[in-house]
Amino acid sequence: MIEYRNLKIAVLGGGTVGANVAALLIEHGEELAARVGAGLEVVGVAVRDLDAVRTPALPRELLTTDAESLIPGADLVVELIGGIEPARTLVLQALNSGADVITANKALLATHGPELFEAAEQVGAQLYYEAAVAAAIPIIRPLRDSLAGDRVRRILGIVNGSTNFILDKMDTEAMGSEEAQRLAFELGYLEADPTLDVDGYDAAQKAAILASLAFHTHVPLDAVHREGIGAVTGEQVAAARAAGYVVKLLAIAERVTDPVTGREGVSARVHPALVPADHPLAAVHGGNNAVFVEAEFAGSLMFYGAGAGGVQTASAVLGDIVSAARRHLAGGPGVAESVSADLPVLPIDVAITRYQITLEVADLPGVLAEVAGVFAEGGVSIETASQAAGAADETGDPTATLVIITHRATERALAATVETLAASPSVRSVRGVLRVEGQ
Amino acid sequence: MIEYRNLKIAVLGGGTVGANVAALLIEHGEELAARVGAGLEVVGVAVRDLDAVRTPALPRELLTTDAESLIPGADLVVELIGGIEPARTLVLQALNSGADVITANKALLATHGPELFEAAEQVGAQLYYEAAVAAAIPIIRPLRDSLAGDRVRRILGIVNGSTNFILDKMDTEAMGSEEAQRLAFELGYLEADPTLDVDGYDAAQKAAILASLAFHTHVPLDAVHREGIGAVTGEQVAAARAAGYVVKLLAIAERVTDPVTGREGVSARVHPALVPADHPLAAVHGGNNAVFVEAEFAGSLMFYGAGAGGVQTASAVLGDIVSAARRHLAGGPGVAESVSADLPVLPIDVAITRYQITLEVADLPGVLAEVAGVFAEGGVSIETASQAAGAADETGDPTATLVIITHRATERALAATVETLAASPSVRSVRGVLRVEGQ
Repeated sequence: MIEYRNLKIAVLGGGTVGANVAALLIEHGEELAARVGAGLEVVGVAVRDLDAVRTPALPRELLTTDAESLIPGADLVVELIGGIEPARTLVLQALNSGADVITANKALLATHGPELFEAAEQVGAQLYYEAAVAAAIPIIRPLRDSLAGDRVRRILGIVNGSTNFILDKMDTEAMGSEEAQRLAFELGYLEADPTLDVDGYDAAQKAAILASLAFHTHVPLDAVHREGIGAVTGEQVAAARAAGYVVKLLAIAERVTDPVTGREGVSARVHPALVPADHPLAAVHGGNNAVFVEAEFAGSLMFYGAGAGGVQTASAVLGDIVSAARRHLAGGPGVAESVSADLPVLPIDVAITRYQITLEVADLPGVLAEVAGVFAEGGVSIETASQAAGAADETGDPTATLVIITHRATERALAATVETLAASPSVRSVRGVLRVEGQ
Repeated sequence: MIEYRNLKIAVLGGGTVGANVAALLIEHGEELAARVGAGLEVVGVAVRDLDAVRTPALPRELLTTDAESLIPGADLVVELIGGIEPARTLVLQALNSGADVITANKALLATHGPELFEAAEQVGAQLYYEAAVAAAIPIIRPLRDSLAGDRVRRILGIVNGSTNFILDKMDTEAMGSEEAQRLAFELGYLEADPTLDVDGYDAAQKAAILASLAFHTHVPLDAVHREGIGAVTGEQVAAARAAGYVVKLLAIAERVTDPVTGREGVSARVHPALVPADHPLAAVHGGNNAVFVEAEFAGSLMFYGAGAGGVQTASAVLGDIVSAARRHLAGGPGVAESVSADLPVLPIDVAITRYQITLEVADLPGVLAEVAGVFAEGGVSIETASQAAGAADETGDPTATLVIITHRATERALAATVETLAASPSVRSVRGVLRVEGQ
């Protein structure tokens, strides 16, 4: 028999997610108690400013500005403050006090994951973080549990809704990059400082978390190659569309073989990429998220839904609270986040993929042959090349735009080829390089 | 510290899935042991016929025809025999012996779920069944754990790959029903006796399992309203396509309000339905499966992948084995499958949805007005009506085909309206009724 008692829950953070979580725990207390087999008692909600809390469902007497005071005696500590400090210190205090911890803090996990998992393991506590990646879309649990007996080959994730909204507008409504960003800002998809989203920092944090989990290997945030969508032009998006592709910002984590050592390793990267129009990821529109997983036995799986939002994130946190509560009642030591494989994390230049290269070239006979020669010498095989007549350059010579899509090549070979192209007399400029993924 | 020891695993069933599971446990033993924190030792594989096992990776000395002999002493029992008996007796024996049980047996769960969950609860054992629905697509764990703090409103699932293949061919290649079924049979999507798939029995079993789990309520198999795809015509599929819809066989489980008592209840049903072409489920092609979940806080989620196959199912079973092994090592009582909500299971006539009705009518002035009058009297509001000139009927009178799509109405109101239509002098025949879902 399970001993029926109240579990004490401390909620740290009174922002949208924290206030939603606390309010739902109170409102749905009876229903949740029946599912868990014990009451879930909110012992307090730590906020930065008592007067800034606007959620009427939160009883004022639960609020405190002293987060630390809520930890002793709590069975579960829910960290929804965000950022590194004081979140890190509070999570470590909570784990050391024997509480199980639930967090939605992607920045903290991406930068201090190993420290937190080790602290949890030492005291036999659990650390739950389903809400840290793609809000309510279950992806942490499927990777950790459902695919625990399988071998993940590759993850392709649309894990940032703001940039997906922008790229989707550029694709489906032929908006320019600036116009789409302005609209995203007006609709609340982008913060006043959009760099976290647009430059791919948010997606890189999630890539580090997903890669670590999928490959049972610590992938540090600074090992994630990162390119944002700032340089993606309407011209590239249109050329992609004409060739049967859609441009998406992807968080990619994959098993690759190091060409030097022959050893298997992990590559994690974030960059805009062309995805075939009939790929399930191509149908992810607006601010939605999706994570596409290729596993050795399970084949291709996709997890789709809203990747952000206060109540959506609260749903993921509540799911973790119920799981943690059941585990807490059952007792026994926690299950440590395993880095059992500990694969080497490889730099992007050993990654192998396909590329779309946009060149501005002199509009003269023989230029395509010359460009094709550079690719051949670089060991990069061309799949398609299409040319559109352009304007004249500043010297008055006629120019043309050449869009080339290649077969698979290493990043290293591609980089060397692009360097040679840039120095080539008939190439006026290399206007952009995008990778092609999902095949 | 976790005590490092070998966990003993008995595999019951030596078919494709059983042989794959046992072979993978042996081949990947080291990797799995590192993930679990203990060795996973296959103590035996029970098969029906020793000579029929064709998997070279399975050591002959592990094989036995005596399934019962493998249970005593096993930590985990993996039931992959299928069907009701002897699977039911063996699972109960295993649970009573204190083993945690992993099964992929949808028929057993849909018909004897409560008995098995109760047996597990009494001894504090766990019952895992991720592979029973949609093979390797994680759906059981997300519903049980990730959404444990949310309230599911509706599940729309494409959970039978064979019928999705057939309907997809009818839609994308305008094949007739018979031709598509023949192709499905030739390609191995259909068994010699296709009724389990085509008549919706397989999908109904999965609907019962999903509905029970999502609504914390026992939904018995015989409470699932079931219609197969046998009556779906090429004409209906074409009319759906022209109106912006795709026809899919859906397993639906939803919260509905009983109009008589005003009480909330659960409706579970399987039938072909029109899905808007821009709905994520419309993009599920070929033999793939997908489960679309609408939850109060999480919003819309979709889980997509291959819904069948030996290695895919083995992947889901292995994920459950790793989870069960971790839980077994951690100790403590199991978490019971909760029927904490125990909602009434309501008949289909209180379900509310939209409908596509195909009528053969006399091609005379005033017929549309008459038909529209019948709908209005029945309390069913018409959204669109489109007419195509037909041939003459057997009396030589000219006929026309009328395709009507309605607004939302109860099944009861629709059924009464269709009955009146059938008796109406200008209606020659009601050629078909399909529901419209996903909006």
